[in-house]
Amino acid sequence: MAGKVYLIGAGPGDPDLLTVRALRLLQSAELVVHDRLVSPEIMALVPSAARRVPVGKSAGFHSVPQDRINEILVELALEGHSVIRLKGGDPLIFGRGSEEAEALAAAGIPYSYIPGITAAQGASASTGVPLTHRGLATGVRYVTGHRAQDATLDLAWESLADPDTTLVVYMGAGNMAEIAARLIAAGMPVDLPVLAVSHATTPRETRLLSDLTQIGADLARAPMEAPVLFMIGRVAGLYETAALPLPRDLRSAHLRVVSNG
Amino acid sequence: MAGKVYLIGAGPGDPDLLTVRALRLLQSAELVVHDRLVSPEIMALVPSAARRVPVGKSAGFHSVPQDRINEILVELALEGHSVIRLKGGDPLIFGRGSEEAEALAAAGIPYSYIPGITAAQGASASTGVPLTHRGLATGVRYVTGHRAQDATLDLAWESLADPDTTLVVYMGAGNMAEIAARLIAAGMPVDLPVLAVSHATTPRETRLLSDLTQIGADLARAPMEAPVLFMIGRVAGLYETAALPLPRDLRSAHLRVVSNG
Repeated sequence: MAGKVYLIGAGPGDPDLLTVRALRLLQSAELVVHDRLVSPEIMALVPSAARRVPVGKSAGFHSVPQDRINEILVELALEGHSVIRLKGGDPLIFGRGSEEAEALAAAGIPYSYIPGITAAQGASASTGVPLTHRGLATGVRYVTGHRAQDATLDLAWESLADPDTTLVVYMGAGNMAEIAARLIAAGMPVDLPVLAVSHATTPRETRLLSDLTQIGADLARAPMEAPVLFMIGRVAGLYETAALPLPRDLRSAHLRVVSNG
Repeated sequence: MAGKVYLIGAGPGDPDLLTVRALRLLQSAELVVHDRLVSPEIMALVPSAARRVPVGKSAGFHSVPQDRINEILVELALEGHSVIRLKGGDPLIFGRGSEEAEALAAAGIPYSYIPGITAAQGASASTGVPLTHRGLATGVRYVTGHRAQDATLDLAWESLADPDTTLVVYMGAGNMAEIAARLIAAGMPVDLPVLAVSHATTPRETRLLSDLTQIGADLARAPMEAPVLFMIGRVAGLYETAALPLPRDLRSAHLRVVSNG
């Protein structure tokens, strides 16, 4: 009798931002297959007797290929284990949860999804910069800025260059200079604000306020630790006046520094 | 001494999808200012002794204007109350949480945000249709399909017509026929799948699988109860094979009906 697999979003890092269902499943886990991006604070909630199976991903590369992760989940479930598959953020937003589900379904293994607060929401709540705001952003869009080695960044630049939409870039730290240049070339304002947030909602959170023209140079001067999330759009300009207190402030020096209350 | 205001996302409806922090704050609440979209299951978690202040919004109109909601929050906090401001979904995604925060900041009242699972994530986890999926959607975008009375729908149609991005439309049930026609006119495939989900993650959840050409007629024939969320894109086609069990199935009759396991 195959066990069930729970594809769980661990959220952005703060254990208090787990969903109630995710916390309950974690606390009764006997076997946890987890990404490296899951915060140590959340892994500390797993019972000490539970078996832990780390499967990547650390900053930009997969230490275990996705196909092999799928196999591991199938194997463990077929052995009869109830499997907690724990992913940073939300399993269905850049989490490849649905690829794992396809492999499980093909093997006749039951599964369910438990959503998680995605990094964009964590960074927004933590910094005080909204994802939508009347007069500034009528919608929000999430893309990844990651690319396979030697591949070109294949994004729909004309479509992305919509100043009425907040653009959130996941996994883009390595390519942000190019992303910013392409957005400007496609018509985005050169001084469009960009807020970069590293390790959002954890004690290691850092932030950098910049703009499309400066963000590449700013990151080169003061690299931020992965994972870094970029909030691009007029809403990021609210950080000047509406920033919520933060552990450490690495705002770009070329912008007027205001106190954060 | 002013009280603090907690701008809390109640998530899509299932109380188990509240964050741990939101649940803790709700359970110790003395005063809750809540939208009507917050599910009865979640309101049942508020202590019976707590004061409840309903302030809208019900299906498409604001029963209390936003300016008045802002004033109510300021007044209650200035009276010294610790105020739980409870909103459906996430306060910073179409929740106008940052407008309330601006009013609070102007009055010198401390506040913080607690994010919530937004309806798109709830519908995705519940139905099994991912928001991103390799080869089908490289990103996801959230917009609202609501418009003020007699106003035209002012969306960036050319930018929205990107078949590589999952388009999620909130509050669009009344305008979906027009939205679909505009997307087709802007270049989206006529048979692009659309999954509509009403009351996602609650016992009242219903679903309708259709496509851009048919969705308007399908909704006219079988109206869905607000709130309805639309997932538009190739990922919605996965509902044919990857649908998770549901309370009730209202798939469009013109599409091949498959069993949901």
